[in-house]
Amino acid sequence: MAVSDDIDLSDALTVVMERVRPHIGEGKVADYIPELGRVDPKQFGFAVASVDGEVRSLGDADVRFSMQSMTKVFTLALVNQEGEDHIWGRVNREPSGSAFNSLYQLEFENGIPRNPLINPGAIVVTDELLGDTGDAFAALRALLRAETGNPELDADEVTARSELETGDRNRALAYLMAGFGNMRNPVPEVLDHYFRQCSITITATELARAGLLLARHGVRADGTRMIDRNAARRIMAIMLTCGTYDAAGDFAYRVGLPCKSGVGGGILAIVPGRYSIAAWGPGLDAKGNSVTGALALDTFTQVTSCSVF
Amino acid sequence: MAVSDDIDLSDALTVVMERVRPHIGEGKVADYIPELGRVDPKQFGFAVASVDGEVRSLGDADVRFSMQSMTKVFTLALVNQEGEDHIWGRVNREPSGSAFNSLYQLEFENGIPRNPLINPGAIVVTDELLGDTGDAFAALRALLRAETGNPELDADEVTARSELETGDRNRALAYLMAGFGNMRNPVPEVLDHYFRQCSITITATELARAGLLLARHGVRADGTRMIDRNAARRIMAIMLTCGTYDAAGDFAYRVGLPCKSGVGGGILAIVPGRYSIAAWGPGLDAKGNSVTGALALDTFTQVTSCSVF
Amino acid sequence: MAVSDDIDLSDALTVVMERVRPHIGEGKVADYIPELGRVDPKQFGFAVASVDGEVRSLGDADVRFSMQSMTKVFTLALVNQEGEDHIWGRVNREPSGSAFNSLYQLEFENGIPRNPLINPGAIVVTDELLGDTGDAFAALRALLRAETGNPELDADEVTARSELETGDRNRALAYLMAGFGNMRNPVPEVLDHYFRQCSITITATELARAGLLLARHGVRADGTRMIDRNAARRIMAIMLTCGTYDAAGDFAYRVGLPCKSGVGGGILAIVPGRYSIAAWGPGLDAKGNSVTGALALDTFTQVTSCSVF
Amino acid sequence: MAVSDDIDLSDALTVVMERVRPHIGEGKVADYIPELGRVDPKQFGFAVASVDGEVRSLGDADVRFSMQSMTKVFTLALVNQEGEDHIWGRVNREPSGSAFNSLYQLEFENGIPRNPLINPGAIVVTDELLGDTGDAFAALRALLRAETGNPELDADEVTARSELETGDRNRALAYLMAGFGNMRNPVPEVLDHYFRQCSITITATELARAGLLLARHGVRADGTRMIDRNAARRIMAIMLTCGTYDAAGDFAYRVGLPCKSGVGGGILAIVPGRYSIAAWGPGLDAKGNSVTGALALDTFTQVTSCSVF
Repeated sequence: MAVSDDIDLSDALTVVMERVRPHIGEGKVADYIPELGRVDPKQFGFAVASVDGEVRSLGDADVRFSMQSMTKVFTLALVNQEGEDHIWGRVNREPSGSAFNSLYQLEFENGIPRNPLINPGAIVVTDELLGDTGDAFAALRALLRAETGNPELDADEVTARSELETGDRNRALAYLMAGFGNMRNPVPEVLDHYFRQCSITITATELARAGLLLARHGVRADGTRMIDRNAARRIMAIMLTCGTYDAAGDFAYRVGLPCKSGVGGGILAIVPGRYSIAAWGPGLDAKGNSVTGALALDTFTQVTSCSVF
Repeated sequence: MAVSDDIDLSDALTVVMERVRPHIGEGKVADYIPELGRVDPKQFGFAVASVDGEVRSLGDADVRFSMQSMTKVFTLALVNQEGEDHIWGRVNREPSGSAFNSLYQLEFENGIPRNPLINPGAIVVTDELLGDTGDAFAALRALLRAETGNPELDADEVTARSELETGDRNRALAYLMAGFGNMRNPVPEVLDHYFRQCSITITATELARAGLLLARHGVRADGTRMIDRNAARRIMAIMLTCGTYDAAGDFAYRVGLPCKSGVGGGILAIVPGRYSIAAWGPGLDAKGNSVTGALALDTFTQVTSCSVF
Repeated sequence: MAVSDDIDLSDALTVVMERVRPHIGEGKVADYIPELGRVDPKQFGFAVASVDGEVRSLGDADVRFSMQSMTKVFTLALVNQEGEDHIWGRVNREPSGSAFNSLYQLEFENGIPRNPLINPGAIVVTDELLGDTGDAFAALRALLRAETGNPELDADEVTARSELETGDRNRALAYLMAGFGNMRNPVPEVLDHYFRQCSITITATELARAGLLLARHGVRADGTRMIDRNAARRIMAIMLTCGTYDAAGDFAYRVGLPCKSGVGGGILAIVPGRYSIAAWGPGLDAKGNSVTGALALDTFTQVTSCSVF
Repeated sequence: MAVSDDIDLSDALTVVMERVRPHIGEGKVADYIPELGRVDPKQFGFAVASVDGEVRSLGDADVRFSMQSMTKVFTLALVNQEGEDHIWGRVNREPSGSAFNSLYQLEFENGIPRNPLINPGAIVVTDELLGDTGDAFAALRALLRAETGNPELDADEVTARSELETGDRNRALAYLMAGFGNMRNPVPEVLDHYFRQCSITITATELARAGLLLARHGVRADGTRMIDRNAARRIMAIMLTCGTYDAAGDFAYRVGLPCKSGVGGGILAIVPGRYSIAAWGPGLDAKGNSVTGALALDTFTQVTSCSVF
């Protein structure tokens, strides 16, 4: 299960690029808001950060893209600071087995989302974080600035506003939870933070750096512990079972690592105790995951034998 | 099917009262908002208006109560003024087969409510009426003032405000429809009109008068035609199949008339071409229909043989 | 509501034929079993029987066709002989609001079908009738022979065998109910009776005669009472709310009468206290109801003003 | 991720026993068939087999119990012999997100089960295996005899017969799939094999030995390769995401290993490349997993740090 020592990371990246290159531009760029739809599909970035701090990258690894759902992993870590069981009465941690923004499951389960990596679950997490900190967006931004080492990292306000304008289904999810008594702050305020979080832009290199928080089982870039080892393990377990929408089972097999994808085309993958890997390609497959990102991760784990299975 | 000529209406009302009296106070008063919960459960009113204008009443027939969902029948009539097929692309007319405010059915059917007498359907109707008239609430109030003959009829603003405060599930329904592109006006504005409509207060006597609009197949109290005969028939058909939440099948048998109930404890029933009947008792059964209201209507149709079956 | 005396029944039938003729052959013949698929679509039969025994017919009113789901009305009447509340603990009487053979609703409602006119409900009724009589099929055949006046009326055994071969979904429904403890006899035996019942062939003229049982509120052709008046009313109420699959709401408006359709292309409609009407055309619309049958009934009720609304 | 070399396996087992002992007898023994209900709840067995062939065990590790759903892992391996993509058109590999024997999900997904470790998926696998081999039960028994080293291993025929008698819901699932065209052999025959497979009895020691097939990534006890490495990885990925009913997310966190549980109280867990672990305690928690089995695995992975996360 350990990464084979005799495979050079540079060699692995070369193989990844060879395998991915013919597919760059494939898939469908998310276009439910104009800001996402305008992204040039012919881009691909990949970065690997090791727990000792080394970062290797290739392609468009320094181009900014929208984090979208990948932020859910970091807000979850933030609420876990308050104690590991802080959030679990308000959200479950089971696979969702249906579309990531489905209302019907939420209705049948009385307003308790299946897990914190689907939209309703992440809205609950943001609501909790807002209560904990007074400013959920600022808390997330501060964490990501520190972990990426980029003090300028921020939301794209135009994207945030577009999300807000097209976010009726997320409003429906939030009000349904409010109807079940599972919202603490006013829905419009929570969603304002939620949409701004999703609109944070990042590069593959930065994302790989930020993911080390999990690869190091909860230890921040500055060496301090943010969440305990068990909380980090739990987050990774949830990523593996729920991190890639309705393709989690397939990802578990193909990639064999805890992953979280976003409709901006990014995927974050963790090799526990070893690596944080960021892949980005804007074109999505039918289930909403990056075509080239998935292919890159698949290739990387094959070459390095770093699947957990 | 015709009402037997040799049964005097007064005799029928006497029988209704005898049958209902021991049950006055039964059932559970709706208490999701304080204004409804404060109503004295030991009240019962009943009124019958015949198409020739005669009105007979008994009990608390002049006590005001909250119309709630019974308003849905009249807003539906109002949007039908614009032509019978005006609304039907946005809402179906099939029984709902599940709770009146379920989201999951709405989700599976892509934001098109099953019928206009469940909450999401009525919200669509209010949205449409708002577009047609610029003031959906005022349009409904004007119609009811004219048909009841009470120029003071109005909403209870305290109830409206409470509805607004507790209306998260209705918000979820509305935003879900907005997400499917089935809302024309801003959700908060539509719901403001919707909740004020529901909060209109009426008496059983007034309600029986207003219902004559349907009993006369679309002719108003002043003798002018409001909607065509077929539109009136359609509304009554929808009432019979969908007017009493998840008890429509049972009502179709027990009462055998087109009915619409509200959680304020009112039920409106129509004998097409003959009578409009209003029954009111605040205590509700498990499916949300007035216990004494249902019993009164059941008794009345048995005594007068006016069931449509 | 009463049929206007000055409209001659023969005139009404002439209007029906004029209206229907251009549409004969429209729709899609059911073809899930070869026996149904082989029926010539260019046929149309119509018959009206009045409670005094007069029968008028037109077109292919003496051609035999498969009764299919229309048998459900008569098996329901048969189990009602044992007392009106005999069956109601095992099946509800509410509209189903989804496809007629859906399992998911049955699962959520713990094996109690929504009503006796959808497949699982009718299977329960057959199971009950089998327990009551020892031979459910024979009981139904005897009733229909007596009411139609055709002592040769029988099932088409080839059709029955085909139904049995393709009946996996009905088996699934039956075993799901068995799993919930809502089957009394062995599933294969019940389904054998059920499929043979569905395969009974009838003519429009015979069907109109048989339907008089309901039009006369429970009185058989020989003048004896089979079920009480209330039981007959309940069956008709269920027909109106649930008799035409997922188009019951639309039928309630267009036709305005209690109806039951079958995928063989037949529709039975009742004018309580007046008429039993049978329409038949093999081509079905998207919801499984006869295109020409629906049109004929719509026309007939318009011309004769016999809608219950 | 590797098992820490300085923790002696015997020490780990000692810790497991200390932690589990106070809880032996907790939980509810499955009693849907009398054979399972009669098992003495105060038993607990645990065994660990390492890929080099060493086996350590404790408690009632040589008492036979019913394999039940744990057989699903081995039948899946058997059909994978025919090529890795052999089965995947007929069953998905995504988490199910609802009860393991739910029909509604199967209906919405047109008869394609979510994954091969829930009942409908395993029935499809047995159907496929029956087609591949002519005798699905014999194929499974032969595999398990070889891998456990027990040539007497067999089904408990009394249990098999009881399963058959109470298996109405599984029949419903199978016929629903047949209705969607996803069964190749006659349902009764497939279910006969399925229920006999489930009724195979095994000991914890034997189970740990058999599980080495997966721990060795597809290599049998005799050193021959049965399925390729990728097929073995896929099976373990499915175990982790779907192997413990509706508690897979919680298991992924607590145990952090691919697991498969059965209602007989057994749980099989795999440390890829290292260990196969079998835990058995008859008392089940609310989600159907062994109380003591889960606790034992949780303890073992904590002590040995062998979680994959």
